[in-house]
Amino acid sequence: MISEAGAVTLAHLQTGLEDRLEQVRTEIGRLIAADFEPISDVNAHLLQMQGKMFRPTLVFLVNEAVRAPDPRLVSLAAVVELIHLATLVHDDSVDHSVLRRGMPTINALFSHQVSVIMGDYLYSRAVIQLVRLDDMEPLRVLGRITNEMTVGEMRQLLAHDRLRFTEAEYDLLIQAKTASLLSGAAEVGALRAPAGTRKAMARFGQYLGMAFQVVDDLLDFTEAEAVTGKPTGLDLREHKVTLPLIHALPRFTDRQRARVARLMETAEPADTLIAEVMADVAEVGGLAYARERAQQLATLAEAELEDLPPGAARETLRASLTYVLERRR
Amino acid sequence: MISEAGAVTLAHLQTGLEDRLEQVRTEIGRLIAADFEPISDVNAHLLQMQGKMFRPTLVFLVNEAVRAPDPRLVSLAAVVELIHLATLVHDDSVDHSVLRRGMPTINALFSHQVSVIMGDYLYSRAVIQLVRLDDMEPLRVLGRITNEMTVGEMRQLLAHDRLRFTEAEYDLLIQAKTASLLSGAAEVGALRAPAGTRKAMARFGQYLGMAFQVVDDLLDFTEAEAVTGKPTGLDLREHKVTLPLIHALPRFTDRQRARVARLMETAEPADTLIAEVMADVAEVGGLAYARERAQQLATLAEAELEDLPPGAARETLRASLTYVLERRR
Repeated sequence: MISEAGAVTLAHLQTGLEDRLEQVRTEIGRLIAADFEPISDVNAHLLQMQGKMFRPTLVFLVNEAVRAPDPRLVSLAAVVELIHLATLVHDDSVDHSVLRRGMPTINALFSHQVSVIMGDYLYSRAVIQLVRLDDMEPLRVLGRITNEMTVGEMRQLLAHDRLRFTEAEYDLLIQAKTASLLSGAAEVGALRAPAGTRKAMARFGQYLGMAFQVVDDLLDFTEAEAVTGKPTGLDLREHKVTLPLIHALPRFTDRQRARVARLMETAEPADTLIAEVMADVAEVGGLAYARERAQQLATLAEAELEDLPPGAARETLRASLTYVLERRR
Repeated sequence: MISEAGAVTLAHLQTGLEDRLEQVRTEIGRLIAADFEPISDVNAHLLQMQGKMFRPTLVFLVNEAVRAPDPRLVSLAAVVELIHLATLVHDDSVDHSVLRRGMPTINALFSHQVSVIMGDYLYSRAVIQLVRLDDMEPLRVLGRITNEMTVGEMRQLLAHDRLRFTEAEYDLLIQAKTASLLSGAAEVGALRAPAGTRKAMARFGQYLGMAFQVVDDLLDFTEAEAVTGKPTGLDLREHKVTLPLIHALPRFTDRQRARVARLMETAEPADTLIAEVMADVAEVGGLAYARERAQQLATLAEAELEDLPPGAARETLRASLTYVLERRR
């Protein structure tokens, strides 16, 4: 149903929110400002590489849909994005990534050490701002979620026996790594709504976040570098096992299985080997299955919208699911 | 004055606190517990390498001295130590240290990636526990301090033009890196005291913490590996410029200055070169000056105790300054 609504761009979801998203950007700059030059230098780079602001957008959309106005919303949205930024800085450092959104990562441009310290710096600034808001609720939500994300990162890092990685483990991983913060963004948008609505929005964000990550993992199999800004097959190259491959593995021929085992044993697998495994995964239905799973998760998310008051804001939340399913990067 | 009181051991300061310090250890174990095995494995190692509990001791001593009982004290002391633990994990990772308290560091035993993630894990658990205590004040204090510590780490990392590092910059560095958390420990012990007393205790911890770091830096010049558990001259080996050298530099002969410049330009300086520079620093009075500065800081700390009610608890706080000055490791 959801995908039938047709292509939805992020710009479409952000229509009418432009001013507030600009305020969020300004607020983030204010929150991380430092009078110590080396930190200002890193900050300047971070502010340049700021992303699509999907999490702040979600905070605003949910808040509108639940009709529980909250004067702190710009600040809360900024803190959510700031936590996102902090985790990206540490993730890039853990993964030794050199590019993020087409720009050099902090670890690549400065150093690995600087990125460890800067992640801590950004996260502690987020906590300071939450303390300033003088309300324990957002701290409760975002403290828990930050912890969940670290568990997710650990799950990802230590998925040792990669070809035995199960779909259940994958679900735990993407819940912790990606869905938790999107769930937090949705919940933070509903802090002033009745408890039941707040919980429904947290679940909405959770399902949407899982769908988001499944699609992300799918794009790694389907989209060319020019579109996503990341080389295709990067996950395979880094020996990360995601849903398309998990589904494909038990359906592989011996020959196909030997091929993927070889890839996993090769420190720097050749492009041809990666391309072959990608074709194998597609052939046995791995991509179709992941697409279906994303659709299913979006349907679960959509069900959480049912009790919201009907109106344009609820429809935009519904459209955000289409955006997540249809996005190409 | 303070040092005349004679040798004070940490065990002396901790007399009567043994049970509560044991409760702190148990509480830390509870706070970081995980049902995800790889995290439990790292936790087990962390709990084994737990240190001297100087910060929790300070929380208890201050609380007794200000006579403002606080039922949350064990929990607060555990959170302070947990934040300390989190920063050690990231510091070791940033410094590529392989040993801490005679045991392998997390980055050495597991990996650099695990230590980045685990530092985040521990810190977010500390935030979660502070939220549970349902009081914004400890969050305000410890949020600010965690941020200060990251700035201190950055100052340390980016002290590029090392032989021009000034004493004022060194003071800023040790305030942020070390004194801030000891100040936080002292302040947390006085949360239920009148505002003036709370501020005086924060300053007490600040001066005590600066003295602590000056002595630490001095020990690096004076104590053998068997005593401190770290090789002597480690700071010089790692091109870290601390107070004894800062004081010595303008007093060096051309020959001595050339020698230290050579050391700073050598990636892995020879033991003989390090020993020569250490002797140079001693010869021109660098060690004596640092000793004097530590004494001066302890005197400033002592002055903050003046308005406390007289009694055994206040005297133990005074003795903690002697401990800091006289310690050999």
